[in-house]
Amino acid sequence: MTDAINAFVPGPQVTIEGAAHGPLRGLTFAAKDLFDVAGYPTGGGNHDWARTHPVPMRHAWAVQTLLDAGATLIGKTITDEVSLGILGENAFDGTPLNSRAPDRVPGGSSSGSAAAVAAGLCDTALGTDTGGSVRVPSSFCGLYGIRPTHGRLDLTGMLPQAPNSDTTGWFARDAATFARVSGVMLGEPIPDTLPTRLIVAVDAFGFADADVAAALRPMVDRLAKLIGSVRDEVMAPQGLSVWSRAQRTLQPAEAWQTFRPWLERDNPRMAFNVARGLVAGSMIGEAELGWADLMRQEARGRMAYLLPPGTVLCLPTTPFPAPKKGLPLPVLGPLRDRISCLCSHGGLTGVPQVSLPGAELHGLPVGLSIVGGRGSDATLVAVARAMTG
Amino acid sequence: MTDAINAFVPGPQVTIEGAAHGPLRGLTFAAKDLFDVAGYPTGGGNHDWARTHPVPMRHAWAVQTLLDAGATLIGKTITDEVSLGILGENAFDGTPLNSRAPDRVPGGSSSGSAAAVAAGLCDTALGTDTGGSVRVPSSFCGLYGIRPTHGRLDLTGMLPQAPNSDTTGWFARDAATFARVSGVMLGEPIPDTLPTRLIVAVDAFGFADADVAAALRPMVDRLAKLIGSVRDEVMAPQGLSVWSRAQRTLQPAEAWQTFRPWLERDNPRMAFNVARGLVAGSMIGEAELGWADLMRQEARGRMAYLLPPGTVLCLPTTPFPAPKKGLPLPVLGPLRDRISCLCSHGGLTGVPQVSLPGAELHGLPVGLSIVGGRGSDATLVAVARAMTG
Repeated sequence: MTDAINAFVPGPQVTIEGAAHGPLRGLTFAAKDLFDVAGYPTGGGNHDWARTHPVPMRHAWAVQTLLDAGATLIGKTITDEVSLGILGENAFDGTPLNSRAPDRVPGGSSSGSAAAVAAGLCDTALGTDTGGSVRVPSSFCGLYGIRPTHGRLDLTGMLPQAPNSDTTGWFARDAATFARVSGVMLGEPIPDTLPTRLIVAVDAFGFADADVAAALRPMVDRLAKLIGSVRDEVMAPQGLSVWSRAQRTLQPAEAWQTFRPWLERDNPRMAFNVARGLVAGSMIGEAELGWADLMRQEARGRMAYLLPPGTVLCLPTTPFPAPKKGLPLPVLGPLRDRISCLCSHGGLTGVPQVSLPGAELHGLPVGLSIVGGRGSDATLVAVARAMTG
Repeated sequence: MTDAINAFVPGPQVTIEGAAHGPLRGLTFAAKDLFDVAGYPTGGGNHDWARTHPVPMRHAWAVQTLLDAGATLIGKTITDEVSLGILGENAFDGTPLNSRAPDRVPGGSSSGSAAAVAAGLCDTALGTDTGGSVRVPSSFCGLYGIRPTHGRLDLTGMLPQAPNSDTTGWFARDAATFARVSGVMLGEPIPDTLPTRLIVAVDAFGFADADVAAALRPMVDRLAKLIGSVRDEVMAPQGLSVWSRAQRTLQPAEAWQTFRPWLERDNPRMAFNVARGLVAGSMIGEAELGWADLMRQEARGRMAYLLPPGTVLCLPTTPFPAPKKGLPLPVLGPLRDRISCLCSHGGLTGVPQVSLPGAELHGLPVGLSIVGGRGSDATLVAVARAMTG
């Protein structure tokens, strides 16, 4: 059964027992193969990565934190190559199963972590989210998932992509486990008090497929009832596509800087579309970067204005449920770009976001997301828990 | 020993006995893995190529021609990925041995064919030459090699790259075998009469490393004595680098058109630098292409003017002997570009060229090339034979 799910990297699996006592004792977890586990190669989703990098001697901070809290590591999971991908199809390792929609992609790049949790192979799993890599698989696989406030967690031992946007996130199937793990990872109790004002991001709902927006309506209504005061607002006055353009300028340019020494020294084999993205990143000019940097400032100002303490915003996590597996690149490109329009605010502004199971559309899950101001991570988890209470 | 040479593609080797009678009876040959052999996958130097293409049902024209003439096929040889490369380092299959310079690259993309002939594993071997892929390994491995007149040979069953420049060529260790195979492949006897006028391409000799130009001097003098009348001329008045720029505009744009359906459908894994070249080809604008097309016309006019019947031109095949293996991409890029300056006239103008062992520099071979007008292939082979007579 594990084979059919294809969540774990090939080869012998790592198992490391968690601490004997701790708040997560009894839970199992998996780690995306971008996180170091001492004594095991970090594969990075590309078969030339491990070959050209030393085996780590220490656990990544996130792995160590879960082990110290009592959770047991049961394996390392498949990722899109060096975290570059949003759909979860890896040309080396295949496509982890989306248990909720077996003919669909699981979403990426934290594809195997989402697949493992969705299939019940473990209770929680570590992912990374630079441009949507936890949020998108959460939406596509019907899971709880978090992209924490940028800069909040220690990323030591996590393979970087674009440091100004990289975060460590995690998944769970149910709100109680999600809250339990989040309390440990955030190092902060999940509060009982909830925010008091809800913003509905009308531009984001308008950008999603109409049937997705309609299907999410009941959850938005429940959220409004839970929180009390609700109002409509445009999240990105400059345009979701403009924010996305800024993020898709800054992030690939940073990714090129991150991976350039490796590419130039080791000339690794990679799927054509992954290489193409890196080449595109290498060609971004200073003027474009300068503009994108200004737009990032505008977006950060907008989010700070919209989201004072006590206010959260909701939007569809993705504009549609998981696309079919195996689509050709010219079909995937526009889908990926649309997803980016609903995800770019995270990498661009650094605000935290929780995605929770929002609706089913012809049996396919799609997530509803709650976004708060920087540092409000625990509050977002509290809202997710209250929604299921 | 064969393993150490790494000339042949991995897996079981094909052997096909040649016809019982024929002018090449007793000779053995290998075919670059871009040529179809019925019943065997054509690998194309990329491990995702065979997987995504049907096994051919017929031999390529060039393979069939050699078999019909009595030569025996003994294997398929390693090539740079889908013929994109000039150095002979394949990220999947490794680097075939340059027997004459074991710490150096063999040259590519017909790397395995050159390595097999140089090591004495077979008498001749088929290659392809679009931008230098027979001429460069001939120079680096100390072999005879030909790029025939473009459009002269039937390319059926040969994996295309840039059809306006693609040719089928071949290698041999000695001039007699080279002439014997050439007579069959060209379908024309190698004449005894030689051209009567020799042009020394002073721009090309000036562009080569000074010690290469000096080392080739004795061979140029012998050639001048053999032919009689000799004069200095600039081959490319617009600049070798300008001809190279035109070829490196047209060829990658065509290669993108050739491989685009495969890339978009199958998203194959490829070495980063190969993918980068294809992406660059996809980004060439119409204005650039238009300019390059005009420069091609100028270059063709120049070659037709310089090379009436009875006149041949000589130049260094490569500006330097084989570079070291395993150099990082930023070092290889400028070397590749310099090689292109001495090779682009072939793909650009379609004239035939024979490279013969020209000199040794600190033990490293470097080739001298003879170029003639379109259709003069057999005459060039005759000159190569006379030089060794």
